[in-house]
Order: sequence, then structure tokens, then C-alpha cells
Amino acid sequence: MRALDIIEKKKQGLVHTKEEIDFFINGYMNGQIEDYQMSSWLMAVCFQGLNFDETAYLTESFINSGDKLDFSDFGVHVADKHSTGGVGDKVTLVLIPLLASLGVACAKLSGRGLGMTGGTIDKLESIPGFNCMLSEDKFKEQIRKINAAISAQTPNLVPADGKIYALRDVTATVDNMSLICASVVSKKIASGADIIVLDVKYGSGAFIKTREEALELADLMIKTGAKLNRKIDAVISSMDQPLGNCIGNSLEVIEAIEFLKGNMAPDLYDITLEIASRTLMLANLAADFDDAKNLVDDAINSGRALDKLTEIIEAQGGNKNVTDDYSIFNIGKNKFELKAQFGAYIKKLDALEIAHACKLLGAGRDKKSDKIDFGAGCVLNFKVGDKVSKDDILLTLYYSDNVSKERLSEAIDHVNNAYKFSIEKIDKQRVV
Amino acid sequence: MRALDIIEKKKQGLVHTKEEIDFFINGYMNGQIEDYQMSSWLMAVCFQGLNFDETAYLTESFINSGDKLDFSDFGVHVADKHSTGGVGDKVTLVLIPLLASLGVACAKLSGRGLGMTGGTIDKLESIPGFNCMLSEDKFKEQIRKINAAISAQTPNLVPADGKIYALRDVTATVDNMSLICASVVSKKIASGADIIVLDVKYGSGAFIKTREEALELADLMIKTGAKLNRKIDAVISSMDQPLGNCIGNSLEVIEAIEFLKGNMAPDLYDITLEIASRTLMLANLAADFDDAKNLVDDAINSGRALDKLTEIIEAQGGNKNVTDDYSIFNIGKNKFELKAQFGAYIKKLDALEIAHACKLLGAGRDKKSDKIDFGAGCVLNFKVGDKVSKDDILLTLYYSDNVSKERLSEAIDHVNNAYKFSIEKIDKQRVV
Repeated sequence: MRALDIIEKKKQGLVHTKEEIDFFINGYMNGQIEDYQMSSWLMAVCFQGLNFDETAYLTESFINSGDKLDFSDFGVHVADKHSTGGVGDKVTLVLIPLLASLGVACAKLSGRGLGMTGGTIDKLESIPGFNCMLSEDKFKEQIRKINAAISAQTPNLVPADGKIYALRDVTATVDNMSLICASVVSKKIASGADIIVLDVKYGSGAFIKTREEALELADLMIKTGAKLNRKIDAVISSMDQPLGNCIGNSLEVIEAIEFLKGNMAPDLYDITLEIASRTLMLANLAADFDDAKNLVDDAINSGRALDKLTEIIEAQGGNKNVTDDYSIFNIGKNKFELKAQFGAYIKKLDALEIAHACKLLGAGRDKKSDKIDFGAGCVLNFKVGDKVSKDDILLTLYYSDNVSKERLSEAIDHVNNAYKFSIEKIDKQRVV
Repeated sequence: MRALDIIEKKKQGLVHTKEEIDFFINGYMNGQIEDYQMSSWLMAVCFQGLNFDETAYLTESFINSGDKLDFSDFGVHVADKHSTGGVGDKVTLVLIPLLASLGVACAKLSGRGLGMTGGTIDKLESIPGFNCMLSEDKFKEQIRKINAAISAQTPNLVPADGKIYALRDVTATVDNMSLICASVVSKKIASGADIIVLDVKYGSGAFIKTREEALELADLMIKTGAKLNRKIDAVISSMDQPLGNCIGNSLEVIEAIEFLKGNMAPDLYDITLEIASRTLMLANLAADFDDAKNLVDDAINSGRALDKLTEIIEAQGGNKNVTDDYSIFNIGKNKFELKAQFGAYIKKLDALEIAHACKLLGAGRDKKSDKIDFGAGCVLNFKVGDKVSKDDILLTLYYSDNVSKERLSEAIDHVNNAYKFSIEKIDKQRVV
């Protein structure tokens, strides 16, 4: 078997065997196949695609490239959740304590964000002292004790995806369904959970742009999971406008805490409920959606979900007082308020533009080595379908003294571009 | 401008500007763009193509990546010839002395073969003492003195093609018309000749498989040459069966010498005449094809073309006695004769199978560092359309003691596979 023949085969639109895929991935990991061969194969895959079997083989080959976590000795279902990424997506921060308070063991491994506004790990690290670098033993021990832990992935978990993702990122080969599926599903399966709920986002603030593509990807991931003996379910959600009202690391944690206190943005509630109910049903803890909704509402209203978040923060070394005292967070001390120029309905609130603005203020990173400013971000006062009057504050940007006038003005341009208004009434958007 | 955006643009099928192509090629040459980015762009080009303007920009960018030869101070037309490569192709060996004897200045730069059976340089080096590594000064001086020189390209001539070709070779991105055109035309233009005749081969023994593709490539190369102010003409020729009767380095030089003595395989004569006549017309030395044919026939029949070959061999340090004494050549001392099993017409004589056999015996190389056995090869006694009787010797393989029994038996399998026979009469194939 030669790398060249495998590239040629895919270029011609032929179908790979399991042996060919294993040979190519293993060869790449042990250095016998070069970056430039992998990248030309990846580009051929973008044009010719991988069929379902090839996608499952690739996913399996990814899983076998590194360590695997195993919770089979727990004797209970262990749940994990994954989002394909979006602006203002703090679902993990509310979902994990919520599910854990309802008796679901949650083993959540997350990545750092290379996107616009930080990943779950970045958000949690905005809580002073919070440690996301748990060892495997510590991770498991904490789940046994309090039903939940949230940790950064180690590089030994699916190293093939780590190496190949870095290459895809610089060779314009990110947007292929099978490559995305293998990347996501392999990490979730290697993480050891047997119940996996995926949140597949589409729209301007997601890297999947249409609902059809999101459905296709969700379907592919569910089937791939089934082939590899895991219960995977998926939710399709819109990411045209940001999720919830806060964007930026500290600000999103505060919104999550407020959520668990019962102050819930409707879109964040809808999607959290949807994912929670599917997980509860897969874990046989709820019979149907209504049953699940009662459990979720009770966990929030009783304060048990918030208590669980406090417990997680404390277990991972964070300052647990943050749930009562938001001044503990770093929040940008400078503000810019964007005001409505006239009365109208909000027709569009572009997630990508908002994210660009927040990134410019320091909320995200371009390169792995960039440092995030946890205090940078944005709070939205209105969403699509809301009516605003002249001089209403549409949003507030938060930023530190490190932001230059030029950067601020560029960020303001982006938030200005985010809005479109209408004189006629606009329906509110449903997220799920 | 970012490499990633250029790859993405081609992936989407958009058209590059001249600036983008220059940026990408220059960036690759100065190390700012990586191999893995070039290879993913090349693969995207294989799927989306380059239009005519993009092809011309790429060709120009290649030319500008290194040294350029200049014969403008010669005050006469300087001719060069290029073949896209085939099995038994020794046209250069007869054409250059022939044209030079007719007063055409020939500046021939050639590559070493990475194909099945050695390139022009390898063939000439089978003449003891022959030096193909001429300096630019020596190359020009020899052309001034005897009207012809044949030299290996220096790495400084179109280094972009050298670097990119090596990458295409290992990433399954060789077979794109625009990439082939830029590679061939850039080298010929940088070589300084103002008259360029291309021999575009198609068929089983060429890397272009169909006549239509050969026509497309020829057309593209002629137009690209015109855009860059060079007179380019092209001949389309078949490479389903080997050209002439000998394959292998020493054997092909012997066939070329015999040709210039008047013992000419019909197909080799046809193609040589076609290319020679086009060159003579472009150089205003012949009015039409008949005029050119008279000149060519006279040069051969008078012995002047053979004398010119002897002159070139002597000028480049080779043993000039080879034209009279073939025992000076290294020829494999072992022979294998393949005999006809029954009387029939030869319907097919597959060039690729014959080439495979010769390569196995040592006539070609896989890697740049492989050493060629000049004495290995094959002599054909019959071609397609010939009638053979039972026990006629179809071909003879020549090989050294270094060839193992296993290799020999593999080579014999290949030559056996090369033939198809017919009871009914088969027309002879025309090559041009």
C-alpha cells in the first residue's frame, strides 16, 4: 500500500477500504506519510466525499490513535454533550450542573476555543482559581463524588484529530461533513461517555451555514455513533443571532449563574431544555419530554442546579463565592453603549459581526498562543423580533484599557453592521 | 493576501488574479507558504482547473522564479524541442544533429528521466565520456561553433517547477493540463529558444491517455507560448506501442545512429520528419512540408546528419567511435527471446508493459538517487500490423547478471502481457 495510490484513489472518487484508511491515518501519525500528502488527500475528500462506511472507519481510526477513557466500571450511564460551536453558547455551563443535580453522571471534556469568543474551558477559567486540567483519576473521582466534572481534553485523546485538525485549519479543508463527523464523534467516543447529545448549530455565527447541512451532519453523526455502539442524539439549533444575551467569557458565566437562579433568556432555556430532555430520556430518567421538562424546571426552581454548579466550582478549585458576588469576575472597566437611531423592530442581529467585535476587544484568540481577556465582551438588551424605541441601548461593549481607539472603532463598526431593522412587526426566532 | 484564502478561492472554483498567483508561487519559493498548503491548492486545481489567463500567469511566475538563458545576441533563430515523454522516444537524438546539419541553431536542455526508461540525458550518458553538465557559457559557445548542444537543465532554471513537480509527483496532482502546460512551457521559454516544437504524446505509454486530451494540451501550450511571445508549434503523436524498435538507454542510442545511417523505423522517421519540417518552416529555412522533406532526406542520405552527431559527441567529451563500433556501449550480456506461439497479426503491443519490463531490468529509476543500467532494455522485431509466424522472435530482452530470477520472470510476464494477436489482418498504426 502506498500513500500516493490512496490519494489518487480518492481523487478519482473511488471508495477506501478500512485497511486503507487505517494505513493512511497510522502512517500520518507515525511520520511515514507527510503533511503535504495528508493535505492533498483532505482536499480530494472535500471534492469527492467519504461514504458512510469510510466515515465510520475514519472515526474509528481516529479513536484508536490515542488514549480512551472508560467508565464501564461505574455501572451507570455517563453523559457527555458537544456543541459544534456558536456565539454566546454557554449551554454547557448550565446543562452540566442541571443534569448532575438530576442524577445524571456527566463527564464533560471540552476544547479551548480557537473561534471568535473562547470555548467552555476559557469561560470556566474566568472564574478565579478554576482548574480545568484534571488528571484522568481526578476527573473520574469527581464524577463519582458529585456526578460531574468538566476538564480540558488531554493531547493524548484522539491525537490524530488534533494533528489533522491543525492541518485542515491552514489548508481550507475544514468544511467537509465526514471530516467534521470523524473529528467530533471520535473525541466524544474516546471520552468514554455512553450517552452523547450533540448540538449542531447552523447560521451566520456557526461554521455550518444552512439548516439542511446541519441536518445532514447530525444524521451522519448519529449513524456513526450507532455503528460504533454509542447512543448519540442530536439537536439542530439556529445560530443566526447570538445565544442568550451575553457574549464574552466572564459575562457568559454570569449569564449562566443568573440562568440557574431562574433569570433565563428564552432561547437559552429552549435549547438547554431540549438537550437536557433528550439526555434524561436516553438515561431512562424521564419517560417523555413533559416529564423531562418538569424535572428541569424543578431543578432550577428549587436551586439544586445552582447548588450543583457551586459544588463543581468548589471541587475544581474555583472561588465559589462568584455565584453571589459578580465583582469577583474580571469585567472590562470601559463601556460603549450602542443606541437605536429610531424606533423599529429588530429584523437581524448577526452573530458573526457581534463575535468579530468581541474578538477585537480581546474575548477570543487567533492563534493557540494568544491570551484571552476574560473581561471583554458584550451584553445585548434586545434580540430579533424585539421592538426598540429611539435611544434605547441596543447593546453594551465591555473592554479594558489595552484596547486601542482604532480597535474599538473597528469593533463598533462590526456591531453597527450586525443590526437590520424593520418598521413592520417581525416574529421572534425559535432557536431549536 | 493569505495563502489560506487563495486555496479557499480555488476550492470554490473562483478565478485567481496575476497578483494572487505570483504571491502564491513566490511565497512557496521563499518558504512562507508550506508544502502542505501548495499540495492542497494543487489538488483543488486538479478539480477546478485554471483558465487560460491563470495558466499564463502561472507559467510566467514559474519563468521568473530563476535564471533565464538569452540568445538574442546570436542574431539567428534558436530552436528547442520537447516531448511530453514516451517509451522508446529517441527523437531528440536524431532530430538535433539533423536540424543542426541543416543550419538550425539547436539549444536543447533536457531532464533526466523519472519515468520508466530514462530521459535524453540518461541516454546520452550511455556514450562513454559524454558530458551533459554544460555551463551556460560552454553551452552557448558550442551552439555558436557547431550549431547544437544538449545539456541537462541546471536547478536554477525554473526552480519553482522543480520544487512543485517533486511535490505533484508524491501527491497525485500530476495530471492537470494547466499544471503540465506551465511546467513544460516555462522551462522551454526560460531556456531561451525562440522556436519551440512540442511533441505531445498520448496512449498507454504516455501520461496523457487520449488523443482529445493531447489536442487540448497542445492547444493550451501553443496559446500560452503566443501570449508570452514565443513561436510554439506542436505535434500530436501516438504512444500506444513503443516508438522505433529499441527501448533502453544504450540500445536507443544505437537505434538513433542507425537511423542517421539510413536504417529508419517508419514510425521514428514519420515523427522526426514532422517535427523537423515544422521547425524548418518556423525558421524560414523551408517553404513547405515537401521542401522540408527534401532537406531532411538529403541530410540523412548525404551522411551530414550523422557527421553532426559525431561532432556533438566529440564536442561534449564522448567517445566518437561509438558511431562505428557499437561494442563500445554497455549492452546487457544476457538475452531472453520471446517467441510467437502461433502465426498471427500483432493487434496490440502495449508500450507501458514493455516499459515496465525494461524498468525491472534496470533501464529506468524510481527515485532520483537510483542508478540506471544503461545496458538493460529490449529490441522489438515486429510492430502492430506485422504478421508473425510460429516461433518468430517477437522481441529480445537484454539484462545484466544483477537481475534476479524473480525480476526477470516478472519482466517476462510484462512483455507477455504486452501482446494481443489477431487472425485477421490489422492495419499498421500511424504515429503522427
